[in-house]
Amino acid sequence: MTEVVVAVVDAETPGNVGTIARAMKNFGLSELKLVDPPPLDPDGEAYGMAGHAREDVLPAAEEVTFDHLVERYHTVGCTAITNEDATKHVRYPFVTPRELADDLRDLAADTAVVFGRERVGLTNDELARLDRVCSIPASADYPVLNLGQAATVVLYELRDLTVDRTQHPDGVHDRADDRAIEGLHDQFASFLDAAGHPEEKQAKAGRLWRRLLGRAHPTGREVRTLRGIFRRAEGRIRRNAPEE
Amino acid sequence: MTEVVVAVVDAETPGNVGTIARAMKNFGLSELKLVDPPPLDPDGEAYGMAGHAREDVLPAAEEVTFDHLVERYHTVGCTAITNEDATKHVRYPFVTPRELADDLRDLAADTAVVFGRERVGLTNDELARLDRVCSIPASADYPVLNLGQAATVVLYELRDLTVDRTQHPDGVHDRADDRAIEGLHDQFASFLDAAGHPEEKQAKAGRLWRRLLGRAHPTGREVRTLRGIFRRAEGRIRRNAPEE
Repeated sequence: MTEVVVAVVDAETPGNVGTIARAMKNFGLSELKLVDPPPLDPDGEAYGMAGHAREDVLPAAEEVTFDHLVERYHTVGCTAITNEDATKHVRYPFVTPRELADDLRDLAADTAVVFGRERVGLTNDELARLDRVCSIPASADYPVLNLGQAATVVLYELRDLTVDRTQHPDGVHDRADDRAIEGLHDQFASFLDAAGHPEEKQAKAGRLWRRLLGRAHPTGREVRTLRGIFRRAEGRIRRNAPEE
Repeated sequence: MTEVVVAVVDAETPGNVGTIARAMKNFGLSELKLVDPPPLDPDGEAYGMAGHAREDVLPAAEEVTFDHLVERYHTVGCTAITNEDATKHVRYPFVTPRELADDLRDLAADTAVVFGRERVGLTNDELARLDRVCSIPASADYPVLNLGQAATVVLYELRDLTVDRTQHPDGVHDRADDRAIEGLHDQFASFLDAAGHPEEKQAKAGRLWRRLLGRAHPTGREVRTLRGIFRRAEGRIRRNAPEE
């Protein structure tokens, strides 16, 4: 199984290290490696930005050398600035974070995802020593993400590899079965008639209702609730109607 | 054509507003709406975190009310905390940011993506007034992202919309305007009462109806037709009701 670690090279701002630690914990990663880090004061900005990661990811962060990363891991360098063509191989070819996730899924190699310093990122010399280049697709007008934000996006894309279970319940959308939905359609038709919708327009209104539900994919509870509401309304109309 | 704006409700930390502005510029968005914002000092943290967005997105940010967002836009509330099943409609059903991007691609409705305050996010009362709920899949052990990081992930996922929009200029789906949809919600609430839906369950049924329409994106014709049907049904019930 692939182990994924996060490495930050020469960060200047402790807050960014804390932000990255938090994103790691949000997306199921725990091993943080720091090359030439700034001082991380437990009362300072790094711990302030780390959320719950202040309890584990951040205090367990290990200071390492760039050489260690290159020797020990399959390495992926993240950069906003790419080369546009194949003539320069320092920053080309590159993958997007989503492609990286797909790629690592089938890989059995411990991997270090490497982020560079705030202003200039990873240098050409550093990138030349890393195995792959990863770049976040962003606006051509302003493709340079903040370090902490870039790491958040990359780790978000890697979540399927690293998170055992998310906070989202299984079967996110519990659509009603079709018989229940048809029952709601029948009830709506009957309600329409009771409500006095013009007879020649009832079929059309029924189709409109069918299209709307067809897009909404109602849950079982929604169908039961709406059916009950229309039945009750119909009952009130018919019960109260003056004798004709 | 879908316009996407970003709204931040009751942020405490100017730095987070700056981070969000930067992510907006990175991913091709420009309209920032602020409800009860903290002071944004041009020499302070918001501008310090905004990168190049300090030149346009941040100074152009507009202070608005929560009511304005509800009335003017198709609204998507972002939250880390979801309901686990279909019994509670304040936070269920929800979409992931990627599903949201797919959904908005075919929609012709101005959309506000709404983020809440740092510690507690959007309240249940606020979420109940928004059309859809969006939640970032994250570790069950620690699903709560920092505000700026959450916004970065959501806006990253929406990035393709800007590009697709220029490729497919015609709106595929002619959604009703938001005032008309709010009018339908009001009419539905009044109809529910007339239909004798138990008073203590009326708000819940209203939320269920809001979630359903939030997914269905009703057209103007659908909204007018349904509003007419509910108004007519309500009229029949009230007119025919025995004197009490």
